[in-house]
Amino acid sequence: MKSACAITGAPLCILVCLCLASALMAAEGMWPPYDITDQVLRDMQNAGLELGRDEIWNEAGTGVANAVVSVGATGAFVSPEGLILTNQHVAYGAVQRISTSEKNYIEDGYLARTRYRAYILLGSEAVTDRVLSAVDESMSPLERYNAIERRTKEIIEEAERGRDVYCEVSAFYGGAKYVLDTYTRLRDVRVVYVPARAVGEYGGDIDNWMWPRHAGDFSFLRAYVGPDGRPADYSEDNVPYRPRRYLQVSREGLREGDFGLIVGFPGRTSRYLTSYGLARYEGFLLPERIRLYAEMIRLLEEESRADPEAAVRVASRMKGINNRLKKDRGLLEGFKRFHLVERQRDVERRMLEAPGVAAEEAARRGRLLAEFEEAYARRAEYDMKDLVMSLMLGRGSMLGQALTIYKWSVEKQKPDMERDPDYMDREVINLKRKLSLFERGYHERSDRRIFEMLIREALALPEGHRMRVFDDLMAGRSGRDLDAFLGVFLDELYGNTRLADPAECMRMFDLSRDELTAEGDYFIALAAKLYDENEERLERDKVFEGALNALAPEWIEMMAAERGVEPYADANGTMRVNYGVVRGYSPRDAVHYGAYTTLAGVAEKHTGEPPFDCPARLLELAAGGYRGTYYDPEIGDVPVDLLTTHDSTNGNSGSPLINARGEVVGCLFDGNYESLTADFAFREDITRSIHVDMRYILFIAEEVDHADNVLEELGVR
Amino acid sequence: MKSACAITGAPLCILVCLCLASALMAAEGMWPPYDITDQVLRDMQNAGLELGRDEIWNEAGTGVANAVVSVGATGAFVSPEGLILTNQHVAYGAVQRISTSEKNYIEDGYLARTRYRAYILLGSEAVTDRVLSAVDESMSPLERYNAIERRTKEIIEEAERGRDVYCEVSAFYGGAKYVLDTYTRLRDVRVVYVPARAVGEYGGDIDNWMWPRHAGDFSFLRAYVGPDGRPADYSEDNVPYRPRRYLQVSREGLREGDFGLIVGFPGRTSRYLTSYGLARYEGFLLPERIRLYAEMIRLLEEESRADPEAAVRVASRMKGINNRLKKDRGLLEGFKRFHLVERQRDVERRMLEAPGVAAEEAARRGRLLAEFEEAYARRAEYDMKDLVMSLMLGRGSMLGQALTIYKWSVEKQKPDMERDPDYMDREVINLKRKLSLFERGYHERSDRRIFEMLIREALALPEGHRMRVFDDLMAGRSGRDLDAFLGVFLDELYGNTRLADPAECMRMFDLSRDELTAEGDYFIALAAKLYDENEERLERDKVFEGALNALAPEWIEMMAAERGVEPYADANGTMRVNYGVVRGYSPRDAVHYGAYTTLAGVAEKHTGEPPFDCPARLLELAAGGYRGTYYDPEIGDVPVDLLTTHDSTNGNSGSPLINARGEVVGCLFDGNYESLTADFAFREDITRSIHVDMRYILFIAEEVDHADNVLEELGVR
Repeated sequence: MKSACAITGAPLCILVCLCLASALMAAEGMWPPYDITDQVLRDMQNAGLELGRDEIWNEAGTGVANAVVSVGATGAFVSPEGLILTNQHVAYGAVQRISTSEKNYIEDGYLARTRYRAYILLGSEAVTDRVLSAVDESMSPLERYNAIERRTKEIIEEAERGRDVYCEVSAFYGGAKYVLDTYTRLRDVRVVYVPARAVGEYGGDIDNWMWPRHAGDFSFLRAYVGPDGRPADYSEDNVPYRPRRYLQVSREGLREGDFGLIVGFPGRTSRYLTSYGLARYEGFLLPERIRLYAEMIRLLEEESRADPEAAVRVASRMKGINNRLKKDRGLLEGFKRFHLVERQRDVERRMLEAPGVAAEEAARRGRLLAEFEEAYARRAEYDMKDLVMSLMLGRGSMLGQALTIYKWSVEKQKPDMERDPDYMDREVINLKRKLSLFERGYHERSDRRIFEMLIREALALPEGHRMRVFDDLMAGRSGRDLDAFLGVFLDELYGNTRLADPAECMRMFDLSRDELTAEGDYFIALAAKLYDENEERLERDKVFEGALNALAPEWIEMMAAERGVEPYADANGTMRVNYGVVRGYSPRDAVHYGAYTTLAGVAEKHTGEPPFDCPARLLELAAGGYRGTYYDPEIGDVPVDLLTTHDSTNGNSGSPLINARGEVVGCLFDGNYESLTADFAFREDITRSIHVDMRYILFIAEEVDHADNVLEELGVR
Repeated sequence: MKSACAITGAPLCILVCLCLASALMAAEGMWPPYDITDQVLRDMQNAGLELGRDEIWNEAGTGVANAVVSVGATGAFVSPEGLILTNQHVAYGAVQRISTSEKNYIEDGYLARTRYRAYILLGSEAVTDRVLSAVDESMSPLERYNAIERRTKEIIEEAERGRDVYCEVSAFYGGAKYVLDTYTRLRDVRVVYVPARAVGEYGGDIDNWMWPRHAGDFSFLRAYVGPDGRPADYSEDNVPYRPRRYLQVSREGLREGDFGLIVGFPGRTSRYLTSYGLARYEGFLLPERIRLYAEMIRLLEEESRADPEAAVRVASRMKGINNRLKKDRGLLEGFKRFHLVERQRDVERRMLEAPGVAAEEAARRGRLLAEFEEAYARRAEYDMKDLVMSLMLGRGSMLGQALTIYKWSVEKQKPDMERDPDYMDREVINLKRKLSLFERGYHERSDRRIFEMLIREALALPEGHRMRVFDDLMAGRSGRDLDAFLGVFLDELYGNTRLADPAECMRMFDLSRDELTAEGDYFIALAAKLYDENEERLERDKVFEGALNALAPEWIEMMAAERGVEPYADANGTMRVNYGVVRGYSPRDAVHYGAYTTLAGVAEKHTGEPPFDCPARLLELAAGGYRGTYYDPEIGDVPVDLLTTHDSTNGNSGSPLINARGEVVGCLFDGNYESLTADFAFREDITRSIHVDMRYILFIAEEVDHADNVLEELGVR
């Protein structure tokens, strides 16, 4: 399953990506809606699109892409009253937060309200010259990184000044181009309708990333604004937001081979990596993350089995880790199966040695590659230490919570423009939200066991690479001595913290550094000890990013020339449009996957045990030979999920699948297993996106959940 | 994988089966070649067959079915010099027996000679009246069983008298019909050519029963006779057997939808069981066998990992158990998925309660069902004890070896006609062969660990159901006391036997009972103690079979009428012909399996690790874009395996796939996973047989193994 999460480990505004639109391939490529070339537009129209350029996107806000919003992942307005269609797994976290082991909304579905946030893109503007005038060749990688970050902040500050908007600057082409995006940020977004877990997550982790798929992974949110029509915090007085454009849902569906458009916020692809970059994934990142994620899952599963309260609390964290684990495993498998590293090495060898390459050009390329090699070698030195530390401070961990509070007490002393971008005034609202939601997913024994496991990992690193804070306390200890010490250490730590209490968190968040230190909270004290070491980690990331930023633009141009295609934009979290068709594929010899699954297939998978515990009503409908509105005579059943050739990745979750006339016919929620490596190398024959068919959404809403109000609002009754 | 083994737990001559040929369905049904009805013949001819009745089978021995022989499973003569085409997994046992851990023929393939045996069917004759005149209604089930067995022996004795033939009497229709089959038995059959394990078993246990499949599961044997042309034991002077009919191999292949015929010796199907019979499988036989087989495999795997010598020795035993385990698991899954028990209960309810059923008829049916229920209830009482005992004495076990020798010393005192049929003079040759081959697959530690596991199972049975021999020794012991006792017991047992030495086995086989007892061999002593208890077990089987024999004919007629079809013959180990077409299938929603796999698919599965360690030469050929003789332009590659709609089961392994003109185009070696439950209920939509395409066989022989002599003999060069 493509997750709703943003990009791990790299702030959105500085992603190393690119964007020169090209449409040589039907499905590969992700086009900024405001920057579609004539060629791409012609290709889309030749493929079936009935819309003109302005009907796709316009500054007035009335194109189909203007109806698409970022909600962590992607959503789309589908009614004049601010109703947003997105995935069940996007709403999952929100719903989980209001679940308890007594009343489990995840199990039972949900038709109520909670809080979320939606970003509506107003416009985009190139700011390349302003950013690049801040750097020069003489700068070190760290200086370069900091100069760009500083300039980016200035551009954003100026753009947001006096306006109720949210701005971001994103790098394209590895830093050859920068774009300023301006968003309206709606802060009161509520869950309207989520189908039961057994529908929305049918197949669960087993089917995740897989085809054939039978999940009804959809949900409906609603955005609210103040009575004055402006963005506002949650209030009973708020009124539904009225978007300038919403998409009409269609009951007609697509057929195999039909044209479709998707619009979304794909997070990150890396289709121009050097062999050094690919080798870092295959040799280090993927295998080590797989090992540590698997261990974390093992611990969380043990705790979940032992205690139903734990099971509800850690469900979302576990789902997130499971998703990353399965993704990493698929990636590693794909790297090996498709020989990504070896193939890229061959490409690079050709780039240096091919008969047509002049000696001077070959030398230039060789120098560039050597610089990449050096940057990766430098990064590799502390790779393992930094991976362990980042997991220790990861989402949902008590230590991460403590560090956030402590770091804010340090950062708040600085002028706004000097701060870590995540700790600037404009982000305080996000920090507070994160802190206040933490407790819902927290389970002490689970947190403690994962923390202990990672401390042991840190202690096992080579001399000079261990985490100093634990080394100082525990170096030289081992066996039972270490076990006993760790037991006491963790008892004291968890016994002397109030951070599990959301009110205490919010109170401490507002303290000054001295006041906070005086609180005597053990976790805060540990975070303070860890602070410098974590800043060193972040600095290593900056040095690495800064080095790549100086090399990537030249490299990408070179690679694109070598491939003989106009380069297209790697995903970087900004809005993209792309087109494709409905099509099955052949995953292996003698096996063909059809483009549609059916209601009969849902019943066929039913075992009665989660994640294959189909609701009784759905089984009845499947057995009863339903022939109503959503029956497709060509398919011979109600369609459930479908495959298309669209190029998508994390963040595209929830993207509307739009027909040639601009109506919504589906909702993207995943890619197939074979598409995992598409983040690194797209393969037209096997890369597929997976959507819920709109007819299944309407069928579930009408026949199973009787969500009549939603159906009326969608204008389909 | 369909195994080459005969039917477990029931002597071939007394199988409860039936045979009124009918051809209402294209693929379901297995027709005795000498008893094909006009309707079936017409159906075959309408489906594409170009042969007349006499060209299928005739008493002169020149029909296509006359070229088919039983070699444990099935084989077919494919040259005038007695060359037999069958499966690699049929020759596996023979080849394994000459392997050692230094020179591993299983790994490297084999072009040499060893001993086997082939049965050529000469003719069949109905003997129903003669058998049934031996029984009357007043007999108890045991009396009935014994009367039939006795009469069967007499018929065989008379038929074999003075002739060099081997005869069998088989029950059809649950005992409504009996047939006497007369065979020529060739006793000198040698392995000519087996491809390397990595070809013949490509995919191993992982792919076993699966599609898509890429195994080159074929081998060639050769039958020899004495210089006088008569069956003879192995001798250097023997000459190749010249069959009256052999099948021409064809390089043309079939296309999707094309007609094909198979001829073979299917072992057992049970398509007319009552719900009580089906419930015994679902509720007892399958789950308990799965549990015990899994435990046996676990122990054998541990031993194999620890010791390469053990690995070679137990390979064949492990393969056999793994095959049965996977089959039982698939069966249990299918029983549940297709609700076999519930569906049959519904059928039986309808048979009693449907509006058209007269009260008298309903009462008759009710009585019959009640008698079945009683027979199963009686059988169930000692089911678990008998299962444990049968596994303890199973193929390859030291205890089974000892019991065979001891039982022979008892049986040989009786007149031939009074003996257990397996211990009659005509079977002594088989007993000796089994004894002499035992040592090759024997590994003491493995045997001991399985034995100990099963003793513990026996001790855990309820009071009165435990095995007396172990109860007497160990009752009341538990925990460490039992562990210690068992340790000493097994040390002594294995330390004081000479049965691991084949020469000693043969010597003891010839001793009288008193001489044997005086040998003081501990395993023989244990077998003597167990003898009575094992005879009780066999008697319980006879009582059960006798009871069913009295009920089944009436029941089957009733069931067939209820289904509204001419009943066809359940498989019973006798020769059958059936027809079908080349066709893929859809195993589940949105997935379609094509009918052919390809050479590219073989390479695609290659990982370098067994069982996916494709030979380098094959990888080269796949990568090199082979376009030679065996390339099929329609498939776009060399075909490897193919699917057909034929009804087949265990024992059909090695059956030639014959085209409309009577030429061999493939070699059956397996069924698909979904076909497992076809032994109980055939489903036309998903039941498929799997064959090696003849073109792949020839391709491997020519391009990989350069088996030029074989190719010349087949007349394809």
